[in-house]
Amino acid sequence: MATILGQNQYGKAENRVVKITRDGDTHHIKDLNVSIALSGDMDDVHYSGSNANCLPTDTTKNTVYAFAKEYGIESAEQFGIHLARWFVNSQEPIKRARIRIEEYAWDRIATSDANSKFIGSDEVNHSFVRQGMETRVTQITYDGTNWEVVSGLKDLVVMNSTNSEFWGYVKDKYTTLKEAYDRILATQVSARWRFNWSDDEQRMPNWEKSYAEVRKHMLQAFAETYSLSLQQTLYQMGSRIINHRSEIDEVRFSLPNKHHFLVDLEPFGLKNDNEVYFAADRPYGLIEATVLRDGVDARIPVDMTNL
Amino acid sequence: MATILGQNQYGKAENRVVKITRDGDTHHIKDLNVSIALSGDMDDVHYSGSNANCLPTDTTKNTVYAFAKEYGIESAEQFGIHLARWFVNSQEPIKRARIRIEEYAWDRIATSDANSKFIGSDEVNHSFVRQGMETRVTQITYDGTNWEVVSGLKDLVVMNSTNSEFWGYVKDKYTTLKEAYDRILATQVSARWRFNWSDDEQRMPNWEKSYAEVRKHMLQAFAETYSLSLQQTLYQMGSRIINHRSEIDEVRFSLPNKHHFLVDLEPFGLKNDNEVYFAADRPYGLIEATVLRDGVDARIPVDMTNL
Amino acid sequence: MATILGQNQYGKAENRVVKITRDGDTHHIKDLNVSIALSGDMDDVHYSGSNANCLPTDTTKNTVYAFAKEYGIESAEQFGIHLARWFVNSQEPIKRARIRIEEYAWDRIATSDANSKFIGSDEVNHSFVRQGMETRVTQITYDGTNWEVVSGLKDLVVMNSTNSEFWGYVKDKYTTLKEAYDRILATQVSARWRFNWSDDEQRMPNWEKSYAEVRKHMLQAFAETYSLSLQQTLYQMGSRIINHRSEIDEVRFSLPNKHHFLVDLEPFGLKNDNEVYFAADRPYGLIEATVLRDGVDARIPVDMTNL
Amino acid sequence: MATILGQNQYGKAENRVVKITRDGDTHHIKDLNVSIALSGDMDDVHYSGSNANCLPTDTTKNTVYAFAKEYGIESAEQFGIHLARWFVNSQEPIKRARIRIEEYAWDRIATSDANSKFIGSDEVNHSFVRQGMETRVTQITYDGTNWEVVSGLKDLVVMNSTNSEFWGYVKDKYTTLKEAYDRILATQVSARWRFNWSDDEQRMPNWEKSYAEVRKHMLQAFAETYSLSLQQTLYQMGSRIINHRSEIDEVRFSLPNKHHFLVDLEPFGLKNDNEVYFAADRPYGLIEATVLRDGVDARIPVDMTNL
Repeated sequence: MATILGQNQYGKAENRVVKITRDGDTHHIKDLNVSIALSGDMDDVHYSGSNANCLPTDTTKNTVYAFAKEYGIESAEQFGIHLARWFVNSQEPIKRARIRIEEYAWDRIATSDANSKFIGSDEVNHSFVRQGMETRVTQITYDGTNWEVVSGLKDLVVMNSTNSEFWGYVKDKYTTLKEAYDRILATQVSARWRFNWSDDEQRMPNWEKSYAEVRKHMLQAFAETYSLSLQQTLYQMGSRIINHRSEIDEVRFSLPNKHHFLVDLEPFGLKNDNEVYFAADRPYGLIEATVLRDGVDARIPVDMTNL
Repeated sequence: MATILGQNQYGKAENRVVKITRDGDTHHIKDLNVSIALSGDMDDVHYSGSNANCLPTDTTKNTVYAFAKEYGIESAEQFGIHLARWFVNSQEPIKRARIRIEEYAWDRIATSDANSKFIGSDEVNHSFVRQGMETRVTQITYDGTNWEVVSGLKDLVVMNSTNSEFWGYVKDKYTTLKEAYDRILATQVSARWRFNWSDDEQRMPNWEKSYAEVRKHMLQAFAETYSLSLQQTLYQMGSRIINHRSEIDEVRFSLPNKHHFLVDLEPFGLKNDNEVYFAADRPYGLIEATVLRDGVDARIPVDMTNL
Repeated sequence: MATILGQNQYGKAENRVVKITRDGDTHHIKDLNVSIALSGDMDDVHYSGSNANCLPTDTTKNTVYAFAKEYGIESAEQFGIHLARWFVNSQEPIKRARIRIEEYAWDRIATSDANSKFIGSDEVNHSFVRQGMETRVTQITYDGTNWEVVSGLKDLVVMNSTNSEFWGYVKDKYTTLKEAYDRILATQVSARWRFNWSDDEQRMPNWEKSYAEVRKHMLQAFAETYSLSLQQTLYQMGSRIINHRSEIDEVRFSLPNKHHFLVDLEPFGLKNDNEVYFAADRPYGLIEATVLRDGVDARIPVDMTNL
Repeated sequence: MATILGQNQYGKAENRVVKITRDGDTHHIKDLNVSIALSGDMDDVHYSGSNANCLPTDTTKNTVYAFAKEYGIESAEQFGIHLARWFVNSQEPIKRARIRIEEYAWDRIATSDANSKFIGSDEVNHSFVRQGMETRVTQITYDGTNWEVVSGLKDLVVMNSTNSEFWGYVKDKYTTLKEAYDRILATQVSARWRFNWSDDEQRMPNWEKSYAEVRKHMLQAFAETYSLSLQQTLYQMGSRIINHRSEIDEVRFSLPNKHHFLVDLEPFGLKNDNEVYFAADRPYGLIEATVLRDGVDARIPVDMTNL
């Protein structure tokens, strides 16, 4: 045989599970999109079509729903850990599990009690409205011994309407860009951060609190950095996270520079004093980098934040 | 000639304009997507290609940006009114203008002042984060005499985790659905409401306040209705708006029933007590209706809320 | 009651049905996305939540799949006619049915027989590859007496790399566009055409042949028109259809002008002789119009082609 | 400093360039989406915001358009090689360039000459219609010495309506799937293949011919394989490519199993003899693997085919 099989993985992707937890009249909701990828002794299924080692992807789907009942969903990370452990430990041919989860956030609908006989407070206990475009993500990988947890978010759109400059760059024969001393800086943040928790002997982080804190530091660093380049802002966002959160060793960002071009209003006898912008779609600058705790190795793949 | 020209309109669609207003160090932002459609004496441009009556779509784009400077953007509705009036009044061949606007909302980024020399309070005055998936929309139509303003929103995703039933329906030979006495009710609201303001002699509504109030009443009606059908919930949402907002005569909804199916866990020896749901994509129920102030005529087209 | 119910409709949207027909070893495929909207005596379901007149949307879904078996899918139009007739005739409260269908086309995979023991000709009889971006659509409406069939297509992307000009237009104070004597003309065609077949006594058109012929005439008119405006091209496309196809009385188009801007290469010492273009996303011109057979009334709604 | 910078890259993404080449009256078109990512001595731009080593992303955009004129676009691969070489060789701080290109294919519009004074044959020489959903892709990486070219395609949707089985798999406590002895096998192919061409001394492959041949072999292998698992089909597709194309050493696939579920029509008294299917959206099985020429190392990243 002139060809051989390389890395391979399989599983059910995008299992949409919603879990309602009832605390008296107050309901809580977890809304996840769970993707399973399993690897191991799967040569035969590729070479001959023998499925003797193959747990069906349909079974991995069923497991997601059963585990939502059996373990509940405390956090996306904790839920992914339960799943990864199960697949590796329960099936001999499976040597590695990678669980990817998207989480969609919901707010409660605030209401008065004036028009309702069903509720007695300012908040309806079972009514929710989807929060923003932003999606929380996590990836749990387990090989039977070691854990790797990489969490993050995508589609968080932010903008500074001032305190951004761009000048002093290389000019070659194809350069026509004018230097800017006051520009809009806007981006759609895709970020992934890796936890240093890696085995069951270590104390597990508080995943929910960690997420809230990382997000806060990232936003504050974006807002508070007087920016000479989007790269500089990116580095500030990453180092702020690592300096404040000891559970995290590595952060990778993919930051599209969502260009807002100042519109030339002079042909119409108007002066545009940094007021009116055209928000462009494509092309866009794309700035990507990893920020590391000094002394640790990088493990997040270069293109992971695109996923 | 065996064929003739019917209704026609043209203009530049999806002009993305961002307007920053500086109030000292505090910046305000309006972020719009503006689409222009003009009608009038345009037979020749279709029959012979003569452009003598045709204001270029490129000019309509320029006008959007120039007007953002000249008039500012007080509200999407007010901005659309300026544009519609201009096109109809300034160009003799143009008899009717329809302006459609999407508005994207931004929140301020809250921050501490600890790490920053640029800000002195808990809020950065020039830093913003995009709010949710929900998009505010408006459509202004003007024919030189009468105004029609239809505002609304789309992609507002809401869910009740209880207080919804569905039973007592028709059963024919193709019916297999089981009756439900406690189900999740979730939908992605697309709504349009028509203002009764129609000429320049009338006092104009406060567009910003009206939007906030309509949205609040709609959400409260969704949360507070004990639902026997999504149609019933829809009607409550519409009548609540009309009963509370005298400036509005008509509301139309397009409400996909975003099915959350209870997963059968019995094969795994588990009882699913309304806890674990599969959030389905397609197909979905689609419920659409108009709610009217008694005595007025309906004018919002049947399919407008899909737009 | 200060509010009343206006137009309303409901049903199951986006039922994805694939029908395989076996003609010996040769398989045929029909791949549809079917949306049902029913209207009639539905006041109570809105006012009180009584579902006594309400056939569940789930039942309408089941009907789609059952009819695929019972009647087969000869054409999207014929399949929609079966469905519309059934809902109106079988349920007393239902007075009107509107069926919308998208159809996705598939080609056969051509192959040699060299490597295969399964096939004996140049074509595998059961293997298919999805055709392009273009989607065929139809809408059937039935009120118990009269039929209206509007068919069409969307996402058909076409381009002329020359034989397009744009000049002689109105110049106002906001006009900066330069006249063009040789430009790219590109659009993404959305078209809907209405058949004059309206009752069961008339002979039904050959829906499959009609579609193929309309598409051919539309493409030829686009290619063969020396264009002074996109409006002129649109009118040629519409009148060509009506002049060649007696079964069609009305055509409506929504044609985005997909701008291809000539890139200014002079700063780099290069001459751009209509060779290098930037394909822009937004904004885009949007040209919409109806072309009618002389003497008939227009019935396709202004915004239908967006659907 | 407790944090350091890791891998980083930047550039302009999604530059949409359309190149028309005129061969007398016959026009040829190349329609690309080009993304640039540059790496090198970029620490300062991250640490301090100094842009002294930073060629603006705007310049990389200009270079794409200038090179379309200077070199033409013979193939996406050849165009990417020109760009990568330029950035690494012309800018001392830039040590590595990665060019990603999507290519959109166009067909000519066939026409008769009956209605046209502009053309004299069955084909309009300057009129085009966009081909299918399928997108051709390539990635060129250059570090000043070695080249890596990985080409591929995405969104190629294929289906076998028979000759697919799935049985003999592992059954655990969460398994409910029934074995299938005749099912639809459908997938949306995302594939990447790596060329063994790696330095300027080697003879360069014929990129256009190679693509056509790889695509043909891949489709034939899909059609001709009697499938016991999608993994087996994948392996056949990959090994067929490597066995027929000596210029390629490695192929990676990401194949969603686009489930077509047989609809249960028994409640309606109908037998579904593999005729009527529900085409599901989510979840879907996801099968991913690399196929290698025996003896070579794998270099395509595990998740690259998602990009």
